[in-house]
This record gives sequence, C-alpha cells and structure tokens, in this order.
Amino acid sequence: MKEQIQVTLPDGSQRSFPAGITPLEIAAALSASLAKKVLVARIDGVVRDAFTPLYNDVTLHLLTWDDPEGKAAFWHSSAHLMAEALEALYPGIKFGYGPPIDHGFYYDVDPGDRRISEADLEAIEKKMAELAAQDNRYIRRDIAKAEALDFFEKKGDPYKVETIRELNDGEISFYQQGNFIDLCRGPHIPSTGLIKAIKLTNIAGAYWKGDEKNKQLTRIYGITFPKQKELDEYLQMLELARQRDHRKLGRELGIFTFDDDVGPGLPLWLPNGGVLIEQLELLAKQTEEQAGYVRVRTPHIAKESMYLTSGHLPYYQDSMFPPMELEGGRYYLKAMNCPHHHKIYAAEPRSYRDLPLRIAEYGTVYRYEQSGELFGLMRVRCMNMNDAHIYCTEEQFADEFRAVNDMYLRYFKIFGIEKYVMRFSTHDPAKRGQKYLDLPELWAKTEGMVRRVLQDSNIPYVEVPDEAAFYGPKVDVQIWSVIGREFTLATNQVDFGQPLRFGLTYTNRNNEPQTPIVIHRAPLGTHERFIGFLIEHYAGSFPLWLAPVQVAVLPIADRHLDYANNLMGRLRQERLRARLMGSDEKIGKRIRTAETAKIPYMLVVGDKETSEGTVSVRRHGQGDLGPFSIEQLTRRLREEIAEVLG
Amino acid sequence: MKEQIQVTLPDGSQRSFPAGITPLEIAAALSASLAKKVLVARIDGVVRDAFTPLYNDVTLHLLTWDDPEGKAAFWHSSAHLMAEALEALYPGIKFGYGPPIDHGFYYDVDPGDRRISEADLEAIEKKMAELAAQDNRYIRRDIAKAEALDFFEKKGDPYKVETIRELNDGEISFYQQGNFIDLCRGPHIPSTGLIKAIKLTNIAGAYWKGDEKNKQLTRIYGITFPKQKELDEYLQMLELARQRDHRKLGRELGIFTFDDDVGPGLPLWLPNGGVLIEQLELLAKQTEEQAGYVRVRTPHIAKESMYLTSGHLPYYQDSMFPPMELEGGRYYLKAMNCPHHHKIYAAEPRSYRDLPLRIAEYGTVYRYEQSGELFGLMRVRCMNMNDAHIYCTEEQFADEFRAVNDMYLRYFKIFGIEKYVMRFSTHDPAKRGQKYLDLPELWAKTEGMVRRVLQDSNIPYVEVPDEAAFYGPKVDVQIWSVIGREFTLATNQVDFGQPLRFGLTYTNRNNEPQTPIVIHRAPLGTHERFIGFLIEHYAGSFPLWLAPVQVAVLPIADRHLDYANNLMGRLRQERLRARLMGSDEKIGKRIRTAETAKIPYMLVVGDKETSEGTVSVRRHGQGDLGPFSIEQLTRRLREEIAEVLG
Repeated sequence: MKEQIQVTLPDGSQRSFPAGITPLEIAAALSASLAKKVLVARIDGVVRDAFTPLYNDVTLHLLTWDDPEGKAAFWHSSAHLMAEALEALYPGIKFGYGPPIDHGFYYDVDPGDRRISEADLEAIEKKMAELAAQDNRYIRRDIAKAEALDFFEKKGDPYKVETIRELNDGEISFYQQGNFIDLCRGPHIPSTGLIKAIKLTNIAGAYWKGDEKNKQLTRIYGITFPKQKELDEYLQMLELARQRDHRKLGRELGIFTFDDDVGPGLPLWLPNGGVLIEQLELLAKQTEEQAGYVRVRTPHIAKESMYLTSGHLPYYQDSMFPPMELEGGRYYLKAMNCPHHHKIYAAEPRSYRDLPLRIAEYGTVYRYEQSGELFGLMRVRCMNMNDAHIYCTEEQFADEFRAVNDMYLRYFKIFGIEKYVMRFSTHDPAKRGQKYLDLPELWAKTEGMVRRVLQDSNIPYVEVPDEAAFYGPKVDVQIWSVIGREFTLATNQVDFGQPLRFGLTYTNRNNEPQTPIVIHRAPLGTHERFIGFLIEHYAGSFPLWLAPVQVAVLPIADRHLDYANNLMGRLRQERLRARLMGSDEKIGKRIRTAETAKIPYMLVVGDKETSEGTVSVRRHGQGDLGPFSIEQLTRRLREEIAEVLG
Repeated sequence: MKEQIQVTLPDGSQRSFPAGITPLEIAAALSASLAKKVLVARIDGVVRDAFTPLYNDVTLHLLTWDDPEGKAAFWHSSAHLMAEALEALYPGIKFGYGPPIDHGFYYDVDPGDRRISEADLEAIEKKMAELAAQDNRYIRRDIAKAEALDFFEKKGDPYKVETIRELNDGEISFYQQGNFIDLCRGPHIPSTGLIKAIKLTNIAGAYWKGDEKNKQLTRIYGITFPKQKELDEYLQMLELARQRDHRKLGRELGIFTFDDDVGPGLPLWLPNGGVLIEQLELLAKQTEEQAGYVRVRTPHIAKESMYLTSGHLPYYQDSMFPPMELEGGRYYLKAMNCPHHHKIYAAEPRSYRDLPLRIAEYGTVYRYEQSGELFGLMRVRCMNMNDAHIYCTEEQFADEFRAVNDMYLRYFKIFGIEKYVMRFSTHDPAKRGQKYLDLPELWAKTEGMVRRVLQDSNIPYVEVPDEAAFYGPKVDVQIWSVIGREFTLATNQVDFGQPLRFGLTYTNRNNEPQTPIVIHRAPLGTHERFIGFLIEHYAGSFPLWLAPVQVAVLPIADRHLDYANNLMGRLRQERLRARLMGSDEKIGKRIRTAETAKIPYMLVVGDKETSEGTVSVRRHGQGDLGPFSIEQLTRRLREEIAEVLG
C-alpha cells in the first residue's frame, strides 16, 4: 500500500497527499473557504462522498453547489433529512423512493392510517430545520444483503425490503444521519448543517413503482438551499414564472394551441405564433447566409435502412415514433435531421475545396415522449429545429467551432440573454474503445480546440469529464430567462462516428480519401422550446422586431377611418405588421384590448391627428409618448428594430 | 314517344329538333364547320357517340379535339385503328386492352410466335394511314353476352373471352370499323378519316392485367392527331422536353436527388433547390401577406379520429401512408392540410367580424403513390404545398374567389406562363343528395359566382358539368410550359362539406351561428411539381430573381483575388447570391463551367477592371456585355429583378 498518492486537479496540476486522505481534507488543504463549500467529489469520474478516503493516484474534482452533481447530492441529502423529520413526527411511517429531481427532491411515503396534507408541511419543515441545526454527519456503511434485509424487516418497512430483494450482495449501502438510517447508494453531502433553507412545495399521490396496480403512496416535494436568500429568490422566481407561464400566455396571445384530434405534444401554431416562427427563421436564415451556410430541405420520413446505418435503430427506437409498414418495408418519422444531411453530403463527390460544407435546414423532427412527460412547448413530440451540420477538415475545425460559438453570442445579445453557461463534456481516455470511439488523436485535438475556443471567447463554461457522446465531445448550452429560470437551449456535438458509419469522404490535396469531422449545431434549439422560453423571458411583450402585431391603429371615431386606413397603407409599405382596431367599441376599451394583446405601439388618431397628419403614440408598458409625425414614428420604429438586429 | 325534343346547349339556349336526331346532325344544323369537328357528345352528362339518336329532352355538349373527352375518344378510336392494322399485318394476333392515355394510346397484343419490334412500327403506321383513308365509320352494336362470347371464342381470342366473362349481360357492346370488330364500351369518334397523323412511339412488355403471374403481352404505344402539323409540333415538343428533362437538369444543376435509404418519391432538395424553394416561398409569403392572409404551422401527423371526422378515412385511405400505432391509437401522416387548418379555425370562437379568415401554410403532405407511378418531381410521395384555406361568408365568397384568381394571374405573369386554362367543374342538380351535397342554393350561388368571376376576368376556361367534388364546385388550373407541354398546376375547391363535418361556425350580426364556406387554394401547387415545371419551362436558366447563384465572380489571375473578394462583399451587401470562382483553372474553362451551371451573370475581373474599378460582364445565353461600373451593374441587376417582381 502507498504512503503518498498523486492527486490530479481539474487545472491539470498535481499534488501529493498521504494515502487515506479524503476529498474534504484535500479541500481544506487547498483553501478553508473551499472546504466549507465542498458537497461531494468526482473521483476518477465517479461522484462520491467528500469523506471517501483515497488510497490511489486519482483525478479529483471537488464539487460544490455550483455543480449540477453538487446540487443533486444536496437535494438527495435533503430528502433523507425530510424522511428523518417524518419519522420523528409520524412514527412507523414507511418509505418508498426519495430521489433528487431537476429542482429539489421528493420522497414517496406511506403514513399508514394517517393523512399528510398541505397543512402539515410547515410542521415538517420546522422539524427538518431543527434536525439540520444539529449538523449531523451523513455516514455511509456498506452492508451485506442479509443484514440489510434483517434491518428493514425488523423495522417493518416493506418497500425497503422489496427494494433490497432486487439488489445484489456487495452493492448495498446504508446512510445514517442522526437517528435515521436509510437504504441508499449515495453520494451525500458531509452533514445536515449545510442545509440552511427549506421549503416543502407540494403533495401528490404516486403509485409505488409508478404502477397503478400498486398502493398509492404520498409524494412530498421540497426544495432546499445553502442560503435563505437563494430560497427567497427561488420562490420569487416561481411566482414570476407562474405569471409568465408560457402555456397560459401562449393561449391568451394566440400563439399556439393543442387539439385532441391532432394529438398530445403536437402544437398547432396559431397566426401570432406563425409570425414568431417566421421572424425567428428569417433571423436564422440571414445569420446563416452571412456565415456561409447553404440550405436544404429533406423529407420527414426515411426507410428503416437509414436508421440502421446511422445506428439510431435499435438503440434510439424508444424515442422514435413507431414505423409505418409499406411495400414490405418500414418507414420511420425522422427523429433527427443528421442522416438526411449526410445523404446530401454523400450525393456528390467532395474535395477539400468544397469544405467546410455547412448544410442548414429548419427541419421538423418527431420524438416519442410519454404522455405524462409532455409539458406545453417545453416537452413536445414535434420539434422544428434550427439545425445544421458542418462538414470540415481537422484543420478547419477550430475556426468552425469558434464561428458557431460566435453565433450563439450574437443570439444571446439579440435576445437579451445575459446569463448562460456552456457545459463542455469530454471523454475519459481510459474508456476509449468501450464507452468512446477509439480515436485518441481526434479526441485530444478536438477537445483541446473546443476548450481553447471557450477560453478565448471568455464564455462561462464548466468542463464535465466522462460525459461526452460515444462519437465525440459536446457542449450543452444552458440559458437563464430574465426571471432566473434555467433552460437547456441546445447542444453542439462533435461527431467522428456518423461520417464513418455513412462512409462520408472528401479527397485531400493529394487526392486521397479522408473522413470529414461533423459538427451538429442548433443555436436556436427548436421553435417549440425557444418560443416557450421567449414567452416567459419577455412575459409575452415581445420586442418590436419579433412582435406578431407591431402597431395597432386606433381611430377615435368613424370619421377618422379614412385617415387610419391611409396610415395602415403607409405602415404596410414600411413592411410593419399593423392592425386596424376600428370598431364600435370606445377608444379606452380598445386601448386596453391592445395593451392586453401586448402590441408594442398604439397609434390613436382623432380630429387633431387627422388635420395635422400626425399620430398620438402609446408604447406598451410605457404609456403616452405624445404626438409624432409619420416620419418620426417610422424612423423610431426602424431604429428600435435596428438597435437589436443591427 | 315524342316527335320533337328540346335540346339545351351549353350557353343555356334551347333548340327543338325531331326525335331521333343525332348530336352530329344537330352540329350540322348549327354550323357546317362545327359538324366536321365533333368527335363525341356529352348527353345529360354522359359522353357518348356522336351518332347516338336522341329521343328525349337533353342537355347537350358537342365535344371536339379541344375537349379532353374529345381527345380521349380520338385516341381510343386510334387504338382500334392500330388493332385493325395489326390484324391485317399479323393474322390471328390476339388482343388484350387498348385504352387511351394522357397523351395517345396503347394496345396490349399477343402476336403468338411472331415478334413485333421497333423496326416494324413504320409498317404498322403505314397500314393505319391506309385504313384511316378509307374513312370507315365506327359502328356500335349492343350485344348479348352469349353472342359476344361465341364471337370471340370462334375468333380464338382468349383475352377478350376472359374480359367478357367478367361483364354482365346488358352492358356489353361491340364496335366495328371496316372489317375489324372489337369488344368495347366506347364512345368512339364518327369515322377513321378524322385520324390524319399517326406516330407509333414505343414498344414495351406488359403482363396481362398487370399481374406478373400472367403472360407478358406486347404493348405498342402511339399518338395521333387530326392534323399533320399538330403531330410535327408534338414531336418537336417531345424533343425539347427531352433536352429539358427536369430529372436530368435537376441533377446536373444540383437541385434535387433521391436516395434509396430515404425512399422512392421522397426528394432530397440540394442547396440550389433550397434556394429555389426559399425564393418561391418568399414570393408566396409576400404576395399572401399583401392579400391579408395569416400564416400558421401545423404538425405532419394527426390521430385517426381527425381523418374519421374529415371523412378521409376510410375513403382516401389507399392514398395515405399506413398508420403508426401508438398508445393504443393510430396516427397518420397528413395527406392534406385542411383538417389541421379547420382545427385552427375552431380553436377560437369566430364572429362575422373575423371573416374572411385566410389561413396559409407551406405544409408538407405525404401521399402514397405506387412505386411504378413515381416520376421525378412530377409524381412524388412528399409534397410541399403552397396551401391556404379561406373561411368566408356567402356574401364574401365572390370577392374572395376573384382575389384568388387575380393571384393566379399575377403568378402567370411573373413566371411567363402565357397559355393556361381553368377547368370549371360544376355539379348535376339531378344528382344532389347522392353524388353531391344537397344544398341547392349554395350550389347555384357559388357556381354562378365562380362563372361570373371567370367571365369577368377574361380567363380562358371550360365548364365541365357533373365533375364537381361531392362538397362543392372546383376549378382545375392547367398551364403550358414554353415548349407547349401541359401541366396540372393546382385545384381551387369550394367546400360546403368540411365546415359541416368539423362543426365550424361563426356568429352573424344577429348573434346566430352560421356555417362558413371554405375555399381550398394552392396557386403555386407543390414545390415538387412546380419546380419540376419551372426546370423545363426555363430549361434550367432561371430568371435572375430565382436563380440559385445569380452572379459568378471570375478573377483572371491570383493577383485579382483581393479585388474579386471585395466585389463579392459588395454583391452580398446588395443581398445578391454570388459565387467566387477563383481557382487554378484557366479563365476560359471557368467561364464554361459557369455557363454550364446556367449562372445568369459572370463578372470577369483582370488588370483593367481592377485598376478601373469595373467588371467585365457576360450574360448567360447572351455573351459579352462589355465593361460596367459596380453601380451600373447592381442597378441593372436590381432593375432586371424589379421588372419581373414589380
């Protein structure tokens, strides 16, 4: 056994420590303030407790609240804390599963004859806070199956017993904090004292193991934070998100709807949604045209053979729609555009002079999501994707990847997205040939280039080892709406695999066949998710360039209709989307209607305006701006659009 | 029995004739020149021989070569004439089927041990001409089944015997011209002398009844005309069409391709095709925006229940892709956009103030066509349709229909389509309640309005009684390419049925629910068919506004590259699609490449141009235009585009 071990840190530096040291102790050696923040550690790619003693040379990532794995452990430990509180308040309560989720955690419990309701949550929170203040350590113990069974049989918890029966000896562990012991594989945070702010949010029914033939348990949802301020902000964000709910606004503003005869998860875009889509596509098409992309169109279906070649069948089959049987063969709705684009690449012989070839398409793909998973525009079955595939040489890769990144930054600026992070997933060299394609040079080169591009461009990014795709490194783009809610926007993937599977080649200067690298990219993601995001982000008050109706013209009385119509003609000439709101209703009511519809500009025209050839301008959310000449108005509108789009 | 009958002519006028008179005699009474042209007649909606004696009051359409039914009878009679010639040249030859087709006719024959080859066609043509010169009448005889069987059994023609066996007594007729007798339901033209020009075009094998388990017969194709000049023009058109074949040019010009792994009839649009599509869509979107349409987007699939409501299932099932079985239900790829649009109409309560509502979408629909029927872009399984549905009141109908017509005329002008005809299909009042929806007032009103619109706008049109759709009158739009080939562009349909099936309503001024009328319209048809047409129409030399690459920049030597790049920047600023063709190849070769790619403008830049800041301009198909300043050039290009698009 070693006396000293070499620990490799994320920046590549190496430090020597005595064998048996824990990640938490290493953190303390590095910085006292860091030690207070460490929740768990990634040890040689696997996330484990910060108390895990290290006996070999390792690569070590100390993970905090800022890492997704840190948050997950924090919330998982919070679920245990809630269980401890429940056991104190409801002796004999039984426990099902209690995992962390995207935002918080839940625990499925069986209180027996008792009933836990919303009204009880405060008392449970209070008990949790009391137990958290005891700052008990989360202590791990590996345990034999027989012993584990014995414990929970004696305790009288049938769910845990059933769970243990399905596990194998040697893979079972318990965690204990305070007096509470749970079956758990971990990892957990060091101690309950780190949990400073607690909110139980919701109670629902949930069948044991999700099977409606089983008993219904009580699912209690909660969320916790290391600081009270973060909880306060989160709750405020939730309230804002509720007000800006894209499903509610989407319907009210005539953006989209669903219909039972069309099917769940298949949005019908209403006329105002149609404008949003057209404007987004126009922006993307112009941006991509300037960046040297070419545009193609491909069918929404293909034969089974295509997806056998691509490898999506059988591995991805569960996420695809079922096949259509035709002429003795099978056709599938496409779940991705790449294979079709590869076929277009392969349709002609290519030489190095043709590269980079950037093939773009607003392609609609269909993916099967379970009904229960569908959610407004955020989880759908039909996705209109701002897709493109860049075929390039190794030499061209860095420039191409940089250009993709620049495109993201340009979009972030246009849409006022101020908080974003790139999650850069790399491969584990030890797993090449199994989890990853065995192309060491390509991995090293492309990962190095991606890292350099991210560093050079000062984009906030985190590097996540051992989470690359089988066929290359990838970058997931996370963005935050103005109210602070996180969205996954898109993924850029580097792909060495598909070009090989499809036999894509180009001839180099020496007339030798070479395999191109493919970059998959979709900076605006899908219309569905992105417009869902934008509705929340803008609370439905879209910027002028994007607004479905940009200008409402409101004649005060019928005698101003001629002038109003004249004005409509002028606005249309300027290619502005204008709506005449002349009706029997009173002007005040019509202004309120236009405000509710969140139309950016309202032009009121009465006697004075008609005689002077002016308009009286209201800006949504700002109120009255006073009289404008038509020229002043159109200049203002042009400038407002140019300010964003440049 | 009547002594006199009343004959109602297409213009609505009535004439009295003695009972027993034939359409041919009526024609002679009307005009001697007309009598020479009459081929068959539509009697109370049914097309029959011009010799048919009339004993009752009838409506009568005299049909000539200018009517599709006239051409069909002419070619059907020509098939009989070819059979007569074949029997003379190959005694004992057996006959299968011999129908007219879109252009000409064929007959499937069994020459026994003999072989008929291309080399024999001239002799057959000669014999046909000889028999035609005899000007034999086509004589119809209704015949009992037993007698018909007896005749062909004695003659020894097993195919005819098999055909007769499948017919019922009372529905069997023979036609005889000269010495040749054929089993046939007709109708036929008056006599062989009308057939003045004959061309047998092709020989192929064809299984009896299309079943490969049966014997292979010899299929001889031919075409005939009433004038030699028309045949000459037809052959010349065929040769031009061969040179302009959209499949050949489509591939050469990088417009589209097919791929076995994607599937037959599913085009992949290559980048140059992508530009054509984008430009066509831009034109349509701008045109429709100005015409007050709104745009929506709908999924490519829907549940079975939608197509049960629309009535497409089960009646249209054979033309739809097979279903996808999901969650215990069935999803279908949409074969039309209307049901989705009806759902959008129904998504909100509508009042008369919301109408007309014009819902447009470039929707992709999928229709199953048999593999053997697929043909380039002309017959495909995936169709990108310039679709829209107009929901309007009865009062608004005429204006809306007129506006649709005007839109066609604008497109014809833009695309230089000089020959076109609208085929107006009306209903037969006697068949209301069976073949047609029983809404007499709506039929009368809408047919009257459509007729008036067609007359007012001076559009060439033919009226075809008893060919309306079940749910309303329709107008098929036929266009001719510059080389004289006919294409079906699109259909406008009036629809009283779908609004009822989907329960679509609006409230009128009195707040009462009313059913809107729907107009289906798709003036540019589908991208597939229309681009296929345009490739032939323009022989691949697209007008400047539409050309995938508008300008090629050709630096003579490397030292002109900077200037050429500068020029590229200027052209892109002007939003022109420019390609730099600077390479190692000689300038002459590059000019030839640009000419072959049919790029409208080639800008050659050398020492002189670089120093003077000019370009040397070549126009595709016109050659050298001499030196231009950049301003002169961009002005010329802008003007050339504006000349077409206005």
